[in-house]
Amino acid sequence: MNHGAGGRASAQLVDEVFARAFDNPLLRPGNDGAVMAPPPDLLEGGRLVMACDGHVVSPLFFAGGDLGCLAVHGTVNDVAMMGARPLWLSASFILEEGFPLADLKRLVDSMAAAAREAGVAIVTGDTKVVEQGKGDGCFVATTGVGVVPRGVDVGGANARPGDVLLLSGSIGEHGVAVLSTRESLAFDAPVASDTAALHGLVAAMLAAAPPGTVRVMRDPTRGGLGTTLNEIARQSGVGIVLDEASIPVQPAVEAACELLGLDVLYLANEGKLVAVVAPEAADAVLAAMRAHPLGGQAVKIGTVQADEHRFVQMHTRFGGKRIVDWLSGEPLPRIC
Amino acid sequence: MNHGAGGRASAQLVDEVFARAFDNPLLRPGNDGAVMAPPPDLLEGGRLVMACDGHVVSPLFFAGGDLGCLAVHGTVNDVAMMGARPLWLSASFILEEGFPLADLKRLVDSMAAAAREAGVAIVTGDTKVVEQGKGDGCFVATTGVGVVPRGVDVGGANARPGDVLLLSGSIGEHGVAVLSTRESLAFDAPVASDTAALHGLVAAMLAAAPPGTVRVMRDPTRGGLGTTLNEIARQSGVGIVLDEASIPVQPAVEAACELLGLDVLYLANEGKLVAVVAPEAADAVLAAMRAHPLGGQAVKIGTVQADEHRFVQMHTRFGGKRIVDWLSGEPLPRIC
Repeated sequence: MNHGAGGRASAQLVDEVFARAFDNPLLRPGNDGAVMAPPPDLLEGGRLVMACDGHVVSPLFFAGGDLGCLAVHGTVNDVAMMGARPLWLSASFILEEGFPLADLKRLVDSMAAAAREAGVAIVTGDTKVVEQGKGDGCFVATTGVGVVPRGVDVGGANARPGDVLLLSGSIGEHGVAVLSTRESLAFDAPVASDTAALHGLVAAMLAAAPPGTVRVMRDPTRGGLGTTLNEIARQSGVGIVLDEASIPVQPAVEAACELLGLDVLYLANEGKLVAVVAPEAADAVLAAMRAHPLGGQAVKIGTVQADEHRFVQMHTRFGGKRIVDWLSGEPLPRIC
Repeated sequence: MNHGAGGRASAQLVDEVFARAFDNPLLRPGNDGAVMAPPPDLLEGGRLVMACDGHVVSPLFFAGGDLGCLAVHGTVNDVAMMGARPLWLSASFILEEGFPLADLKRLVDSMAAAAREAGVAIVTGDTKVVEQGKGDGCFVATTGVGVVPRGVDVGGANARPGDVLLLSGSIGEHGVAVLSTRESLAFDAPVASDTAALHGLVAAMLAAAPPGTVRVMRDPTRGGLGTTLNEIARQSGVGIVLDEASIPVQPAVEAACELLGLDVLYLANEGKLVAVVAPEAADAVLAAMRAHPLGGQAVKIGTVQADEHRFVQMHTRFGGKRIVDWLSGEPLPRIC
């Protein structure tokens, strides 16, 4: 509890764990807030983007990732989905009394590595400690700020009938990785989380597309692809028709879904994006995705159509058609 | 748990509680991130400020405030202490399963009111739900972004020997208010938290001071005035000498401290600031503080001096002199 009380122990924790791992010129002054000069593309007609995510994934460490890198990727991706270049992160830690310092250091090092790799700086932070039984090891809330360059306008309400849906790769890995670690399930082929920062992929897509032709981008995290597409349909006032056979799913994920009775459409992803693109730009954007390391398996998975009911429908592999509804009923808690 | 799973129940919670209370044009699109045009003072040579705070105060409701308004004031003040005008907030909620919806609404309404009053918009948010016994009702992490106008340079490392310390008012109210609610202590004169947004006071001080003469501003929250002054001494590499008799303390706070064996110098404040000001500007800044509703009791409390040991010392009321050390030993947990 002493580490959270704001005195000498707090200062030591900040110095020895956080400041050392996250070190950068913006964090180094150690003030209540970080001060940053506006980047050139903001001054040249750009706009700011701000997004946040709380991370409560359980367990903290899972196949392919941990809470630390997830807290960076999740928020970097939320910023990137607005068409922005992520620049700065804040990180707020809520620790449970007795949480091992070694685990904290491991998470913090993972965050620092993920931030370095993504080219973003963790510029400001906060740490609180709560009593045993009032938290769960470690929660991290991150907020990201970035810049949308002039001329880029991406948002959930921009999908139009005739637009094409592109998916950057196979779905369900993050959900299966966390669930199988949590439930101590051993599969023949272990599934690793796909957690990754997607802003490089986003930049490549925008560079390949004429202005205004990338309408919507979203990372289907909690709630999965099924929920994300319903959100887009609702925001844009359109219907969506999917082709199930086109949606890539790793065999090990498919096997896990069968075993656990889960629908892969509702499993969380942390390194995939779905984009709604104007038909005339779809081929160019798809080619740009496939040329990027995080979009090698990118595919067209469906189209947008006029539909006053805003339904997401899917042509199934067996020749039928079904509604892909909002996730309801059995939730998959604490997946991110 | 359903409300945190990312499906229909999550969307309903967001629509009916958060979107309604926080409604503003930047939040309304409901995307993963908010998109904002840069304000004029940023384009005219200003800089961005980013600050964050996690809020885990217990109890959630206390005399004079609650977790909701605290989550706004705490972060608005961190942004303001850099000399900035706060503009936008993100809010990340971590709820414990079973937390009453009525309490959540009350906290959210309090946040919304505090944001409106402070003139900041809550532009983006996130909600997670954890199982019973893995959280404690409600935690809120907020990040604020603001703009420092051109020519303003405030920071913890700027204090110089000869500078004057100004305090905006009496100390210890927030700490006593939370502790007395938590321990169900009834005092004859109940003490209310001083929680308030200080950016208006900051703007008035900066307007009254020649450029560069307001060196440091800080709100002595967790750890209190004693810890905050040690931080400034460390960052600036200076010593500080306080005059105990000049530090205002409400009689009820003094009584509570005596009863509970607490040192008021280490009690948290949520609506006070301490400033280090060049001697030639001290009178003008003090007058500006006293003319503001949140600085009516502002006083000079000490001076900065050269000291390689970076000690904070205090002339006591009884004519002695003592070291005001970093807070250590008995912590006051979850005060903010």
